[in-house]
Amino acid sequence: MSAVLVVNSGSSSFKYQLIELEGEKTLASGLVERIGEETGATKHRNALTGDETSNDSEPIADHAAGFAAMLKAFEQHGPSFDEHPLLAVGHRVVHGGSEFDRATIVDDAVEEAIERLSALAPLHNPANLEGIRAAKEAFPDVAQVAVFDTAFHQTLTPAAYTYAIDDELAKKHQVRRYGFHGTSHKYVSQAAADFLDTPLAELKMIVLHIGNGASATAIEGGRSIETSMGLTPLEGLVMGTRSGDVDPAVVFHLHREAGLSFDEIETMLNKRSGLLGLTGNGDMRDVQDAASRGDQVAEAALAVYRHRMRHYVGAYAAQLGGLDAIVFTAGVGENNALLRRRTLLGLEFLGVTIDDDRNELASREARYISKEGAPVSVLVVPTDEELEIARQAAELV
Amino acid sequence: MSAVLVVNSGSSSFKYQLIELEGEKTLASGLVERIGEETGATKHRNALTGDETSNDSEPIADHAAGFAAMLKAFEQHGPSFDEHPLLAVGHRVVHGGSEFDRATIVDDAVEEAIERLSALAPLHNPANLEGIRAAKEAFPDVAQVAVFDTAFHQTLTPAAYTYAIDDELAKKHQVRRYGFHGTSHKYVSQAAADFLDTPLAELKMIVLHIGNGASATAIEGGRSIETSMGLTPLEGLVMGTRSGDVDPAVVFHLHREAGLSFDEIETMLNKRSGLLGLTGNGDMRDVQDAASRGDQVAEAALAVYRHRMRHYVGAYAAQLGGLDAIVFTAGVGENNALLRRRTLLGLEFLGVTIDDDRNELASREARYISKEGAPVSVLVVPTDEELEIARQAAELV
Ligand SMILES: Nc1ncnc2c1ncn2[C@@H]1O[C@H](COP(=O)(O)OP(=O)(O)O)[C@@H](O)[C@H]1O
Ligand SMILES: Nc1ncnc2c1ncn2[C@@H]1O[C@H](COP(=O)(O)OP(=O)(O)O)[C@@H](O)[C@H]1O
Repeated sequence: MSAVLVVNSGSSSFKYQLIELEGEKTLASGLVERIGEETGATKHRNALTGDETSNDSEPIADHAAGFAAMLKAFEQHGPSFDEHPLLAVGHRVVHGGSEFDRATIVDDAVEEAIERLSALAPLHNPANLEGIRAAKEAFPDVAQVAVFDTAFHQTLTPAAYTYAIDDELAKKHQVRRYGFHGTSHKYVSQAAADFLDTPLAELKMIVLHIGNGASATAIEGGRSIETSMGLTPLEGLVMGTRSGDVDPAVVFHLHREAGLSFDEIETMLNKRSGLLGLTGNGDMRDVQDAASRGDQVAEAALAVYRHRMRHYVGAYAAQLGGLDAIVFTAGVGENNALLRRRTLLGLEFLGVTIDDDRNELASREARYISKEGAPVSVLVVPTDEELEIARQAAELV
Repeated sequence: MSAVLVVNSGSSSFKYQLIELEGEKTLASGLVERIGEETGATKHRNALTGDETSNDSEPIADHAAGFAAMLKAFEQHGPSFDEHPLLAVGHRVVHGGSEFDRATIVDDAVEEAIERLSALAPLHNPANLEGIRAAKEAFPDVAQVAVFDTAFHQTLTPAAYTYAIDDELAKKHQVRRYGFHGTSHKYVSQAAADFLDTPLAELKMIVLHIGNGASATAIEGGRSIETSMGLTPLEGLVMGTRSGDVDPAVVFHLHREAGLSFDEIETMLNKRSGLLGLTGNGDMRDVQDAASRGDQVAEAALAVYRHRMRHYVGAYAAQLGGLDAIVFTAGVGENNALLRRRTLLGLEFLGVTIDDDRNELASREARYISKEGAPVSVLVVPTDEELEIARQAAELV
């Protein structure tokens, strides 16, 4: 039965999943790392047999060599592409700028556009392109599909995506809010509507994608109308290592007072901020554990984290003009019950409630965590970006 | 009857008002400008006689000379300090850092602190100090009182004032949210409580100070619990020439793509952004007029402006855990009825309404603009920062 290979390519690694379309089942998954280093590393899992294999002794020169290593793993450990013919390869691409409001088959013009949009995502788009080019080489007869993190948010109105800066400069350098995590927000909002058995068109919903990266999106009738990440994924919520919102003047102040350069401040805000900056540890599990043991620094960091989430919940309820559902997803959102409860404390006036028993139930399924019959449905809905990429890729071929 | 002289000193100008304490009446007001230029300019108005005078032919070397010119105007045109003995001079000081949570009599230690805090307000605090020093010279026997823009917001909890950046760097360089316009927010929240005939202690309120500069503050029981300006007045709402919130990565992007320096970007965000950046005109009256005539660019800018205000209204309702009142104040907030109405459109689910007749009534008094009996009282309350400074100064002597 036909399948889609989903590829998420970084600069020195890529992850993949083979997903069968009927039944939406993962057939295999794997990881190729340390591309270009002295020795590379691969991991492959055949989900049908449970068979896992890894290799970290051979060098992997580039993404093409990485794809060759992946193909070898499929050959040796299965499943076989003969039994599961590839319908498409679906690629996660971070930045689609204002040009892509949906997934697209990659032709030369699209490749060129992704390259051009590297100005907006200098670390990610070039790495995504490497994956696309290697996949074209490995599967020359299969359609390559680009699925953009930004595409779902192209429905934002100018009032929502415009920064109030010098207009000429903004236009010339494409400065506006784009938003990210779009594939997840789209998948989760549809899954929430399915769970609620209500057409997406009738729902006003806030999706809180809270992982290492974190973003909030206001979704009205299935369309993204506001989202907390902006020109880049730096803006918005407090994250594992990113600051989220700060007064932009912080940059000038730190330059003047601490003598830091653009690069140093950019690195600090992206890699040494967020939970990591506040506590020395960027992993929510560790910070939550520390707070539960009474660590004051960890508890203070979580208070900042929750305060910012509450800010966005209120702001987006206002932009939606009312609220039917709040949906938690991603690593933290799906797993940290205490954070969910404490974030939503005090929002009863919006109709927001938490049922402690439901909230504390560990489960991998979509579920209610609000009280029975409450005006706002609060849900946990596991995200699945790979499945969403596979669906969108399959739709195009 | 005794009076307070209120001084708001900039680097090359200062404004003053003489305010009688009993009856809280302005006795005189004036302006000294172009200090240090070839010729200075003064304006003085005796509010008791209506007598106005101005002079723009003589040079004014420094703030001390400016005070001498002011004293001469008082002598020649009244009112006389003999009839209205000065109880104190109240100085607006922009930045009180984390050290001042209220107004204070200026002694050597306070002067030193204001000077030290210039790192946080390099344009404002030194200019405020010039005013204080000139006033000490002019009125050596009168108490000088510093009233800080930041003081009212010192009640913010760490969850509200902490940016999620590298903690060590933040502490070392005093990077946190301070908030500004505090004197206005305090005055207006008290005036709103008086108007509502409800103790401030019982009210959850959002004050929208919307002038050239603009900020929103969430006030619970008379205490500021959140405010939209941050380390500096750049953050938050869209303003006349300031951007308010932007992805901090905009700074790095413009450096990389447009080759702009720190100073150029800082100047752009502070002086060439906001309404000015979006429309070419930073004055709300003009932008509103243009939009009313059908100018699409002006209308689009106002949509951004309102969208951001709605964001903060929702966010702060969430932080307050409910809402009793929304209060508009300052030049735009007091005068632009259309903006008020359109900003609050869609917030009926919060209990927020606008009564068009009340809203469109031009008046200089505190008044309702919400519908009779609505759950949230929406008010217009004129601000008076000078009077608040006079009150706080008088309280200390
Ligand atoms: N059981 C758990 N309890 C609390 N946090 C968890 C749990 N499982 C995962 N997380 C947190 O989720 C985050 C990773 O989320 P994920 O969605 O995988 O992030 P991303 O895709 O952005 O890298 C980490 O901070 C991790 O600690
Ligand atoms: N009648 C009016 N209608 C609309 N806007 C007005 C009106 N009067 C004043 N404003 C606007 O108020 C702003 C100035 O407000 P103000 O509170 O004096 O600012 P600040 O004290 O921050 O300099 C200007 O943008 C001005 O156009």
